[in-house]
Amino acid sequence: MNYKIILFILSRLLFIEGFVIIISGLISYFYGDTDMMYFMESAALCFSIGVLSYPFLRKINKNLGKKESYLVVSLTWVTFSLFGALPFYLSGAIPSFTNAFFETMSGFTTTGASILDDIEALSHGLLFWRSITQWLGGMGMIVLGVAILPLLGIGGMQLFVAEVPGPTPDKLHPRIKGTALRLWGIYILFTVIETILLVLGGMTWFDAVNHSFTTMATGGYSTKQLSVAYYTSPYIQYVISLFMFIAGMNFTLSFFALKLNVKKLIYNEEFKWYFLITVITTLVLSIFLYFNYENNGQFEPVFRSVLFQVISIVTTTGYATYDYTLWPYFAVFIMFILMFVGGSAGSTGGGPKVMRVLVLIKNSYFEFRRILHPKGVIPVRYNKRAIDTKTIATIQAFFVVYVLTFLGGSIAMSLFGLDTDTAMGSVIACLGNIGPGIGEVGPSNNFLFIPDGGKWLLSFLMMIGRLELFTVLVLFTPFYWKK
Amino acid sequence: MNYKIILFILSRLLFIEGFVIIISGLISYFYGDTDMMYFMESAALCFSIGVLSYPFLRKINKNLGKKESYLVVSLTWVTFSLFGALPFYLSGAIPSFTNAFFETMSGFTTTGASILDDIEALSHGLLFWRSITQWLGGMGMIVLGVAILPLLGIGGMQLFVAEVPGPTPDKLHPRIKGTALRLWGIYILFTVIETILLVLGGMTWFDAVNHSFTTMATGGYSTKQLSVAYYTSPYIQYVISLFMFIAGMNFTLSFFALKLNVKKLIYNEEFKWYFLITVITTLVLSIFLYFNYENNGQFEPVFRSVLFQVISIVTTTGYATYDYTLWPYFAVFIMFILMFVGGSAGSTGGGPKVMRVLVLIKNSYFEFRRILHPKGVIPVRYNKRAIDTKTIATIQAFFVVYVLTFLGGSIAMSLFGLDTDTAMGSVIACLGNIGPGIGEVGPSNNFLFIPDGGKWLLSFLMMIGRLELFTVLVLFTPFYWKK
Repeated sequence: MNYKIILFILSRLLFIEGFVIIISGLISYFYGDTDMMYFMESAALCFSIGVLSYPFLRKINKNLGKKESYLVVSLTWVTFSLFGALPFYLSGAIPSFTNAFFETMSGFTTTGASILDDIEALSHGLLFWRSITQWLGGMGMIVLGVAILPLLGIGGMQLFVAEVPGPTPDKLHPRIKGTALRLWGIYILFTVIETILLVLGGMTWFDAVNHSFTTMATGGYSTKQLSVAYYTSPYIQYVISLFMFIAGMNFTLSFFALKLNVKKLIYNEEFKWYFLITVITTLVLSIFLYFNYENNGQFEPVFRSVLFQVISIVTTTGYATYDYTLWPYFAVFIMFILMFVGGSAGSTGGGPKVMRVLVLIKNSYFEFRRILHPKGVIPVRYNKRAIDTKTIATIQAFFVVYVLTFLGGSIAMSLFGLDTDTAMGSVIACLGNIGPGIGEVGPSNNFLFIPDGGKWLLSFLMMIGRLELFTVLVLFTPFYWKK
Repeated sequence: MNYKIILFILSRLLFIEGFVIIISGLISYFYGDTDMMYFMESAALCFSIGVLSYPFLRKINKNLGKKESYLVVSLTWVTFSLFGALPFYLSGAIPSFTNAFFETMSGFTTTGASILDDIEALSHGLLFWRSITQWLGGMGMIVLGVAILPLLGIGGMQLFVAEVPGPTPDKLHPRIKGTALRLWGIYILFTVIETILLVLGGMTWFDAVNHSFTTMATGGYSTKQLSVAYYTSPYIQYVISLFMFIAGMNFTLSFFALKLNVKKLIYNEEFKWYFLITVITTLVLSIFLYFNYENNGQFEPVFRSVLFQVISIVTTTGYATYDYTLWPYFAVFIMFILMFVGGSAGSTGGGPKVMRVLVLIKNSYFEFRRILHPKGVIPVRYNKRAIDTKTIATIQAFFVVYVLTFLGGSIAMSLFGLDTDTAMGSVIACLGNIGPGIGEVGPSNNFLFIPDGGKWLLSFLMMIGRLELFTVLVLFTPFYWKK
């Protein structure tokens, strides 16, 4: 194991984090908040690692293998959350370090689960920092590093694969740096467009930027305690719905769509099903709720509310304009199941991803045919190409590990005294990087009441969820440490 | 499709059913109950099918292919439940046919979910019939048919595979009839031994026979409204625990164990894990409950209660000496997860089976190694032999379909107004052939309150659970009906 290169990469990435913390501090200063110095202290601590390790890292072997990649990526998430918690902790806005760490990990992993019960009490700088952790984590700190730090060209592909959501990352450019730059490019573009549209809808610039950050990251942190429910304007709710939907799409597809290559989009199977799941669930639930739940006789508000909540959960954003846990059981259950789908591969969304669910179901369906014709070769086709059995096996193993992690996590949470719904709800909300769950951690509640041990466990689940299990979990197997 | 042979087999099997109904009627007569004539009417209806179809089935093509096998086995279960419901329905003991059908399907599938709220009000004949449906369904009507009807030698293996639980049935004899006879042989032997042991513990002969039937079938119907809780004798509870455990073992292994070939047992991986799951869960939960739940300061009663409940759920029997839904959340959650394991392959237990869970987890664990060494061939070993990838794929597909069926069923049940816990609890209780579930269908409750539509759905789930999904579900795919 080449530990020096790992330390080298981490210390370089911490410079980026420190830099962003300084910007957040300046924003606090700009808005007249008095906590700028805590940001400067935090940033100084970030830089100190790079400075202190400098003498030891002058001569390093720049070999970065597969094993090192998994470790670097996992450690990046832990390190960023540890240092990222400092502004909250040092300023006293979140007096418990456990809570500050939870809030930050929830940010970087774009989960959006919060321990705050009075979000509006935070300074502008802290609100901005809170939102931008999600924005950085959405596209990924490593992907950012690959794009802007010259060094990460070495082994960049390995790191990239370990961080990007989905079974196989698409290439937008023959060079990995080119791909990373293009991804960040459209990410920034969408964020800017959404900000402008929100401002046009009457949001302040500050709130618009924050909400755009957390929409495009499918993160779900809001600057308002009421989340998006604070904004009663249908226009704002529809704009956010649209951009959540975009953020849950494969960014490679969006890239081609922006270049007017619409065919790529229309013929993409994952997009088709991502679209269908959203539309069908929204229609079924809005009709169901229109006839079975309180409403003022108008269909549009019901539809809008369902659309927003469904997209928010499918994309794993976690914003709320209504507390879906108040809906009838059937509707709550549908939302719970949606949590096990997630966004598209190559999006900023969490969860297992539409593509994996699709391949899994397709393959099982064809198994019936295989049973009737045991000697025939019956491949699963995806985007008109046969998928090799190794990929299917990996996807199936992914689900098994996902479900086992979910069950194991839920058992552990029930040991902290949580009821079954809340235990399962909190675990899937964190593992799937959603934010609000079901039970006592629904959209109108927060995670403050959970015991500290539970918060550390949930933070860990957020991380393995964001890094899609294997990147982190492989570190805990004997295979990894065997020479 | 050779429909004639299907009708032929069904009508022959109905003779067995009619015969057993007559025996039940005689038992009613023997105990002085006044409902014997309803049994005779029901039996006559069973025989009528064979008699009426006789002229049409004189010349038949005795070819029985794979497709016909699936249909025969599925139809057998439906037909047996339809006719088996007659004694309950005609006698007026269960005035609703839906309820009578549910109770009978729950019997034949060894589920043990009941709609009765006063079991002791039934006549001796009906109690006996209720228990013996489980005993017949436990080892399987087809396996019985293969053993005793000469005709079923044709295509017997096909039918056998479609009915016996577990991915691959073991052979006890080169001829399928020989295997079937030996299986029924040890089944009867264990039933007789348990009966004697229960009588020695103070049970009446009638109750002892009934409980032995439903223990060995892992069915769980009791002659008492309180289930086994009626019997406070620790001896009786331990005896039943032991025989539930035996019934959840692979009968092939029991056969070798009875022949003192203990090696086969000890070196069997599924047995090892079946044993470990039972022991570890019992120990963990009894210690947890001893310190966190009401008790009179003695460990033994807690241990016995946990042991009984754990074995009852792992083996999918469903007897109760205590209502586990009253335990703290952690313990209830463990029980819920146990419901997704089930007994051993080749036992009378339901659920996905220990072997499948084992292969699934092992394979996923090795996936971590495959990720680190993508070019290596890393097989999964089971009982020291490498399992071929096709078997693994089938097992994985089984789980996907199992989980999807569970989720789909739960959604449907929530549409009938059941809360999330009860919806999931009733579905896994029926799909896993367990009986009591969680929520409103726990061990102290029954299924009477569920709307009729829900009962038909749950009956269907019991059937596909008992026949391990594919046998039944393949009938609903286009592949099956394609020429």
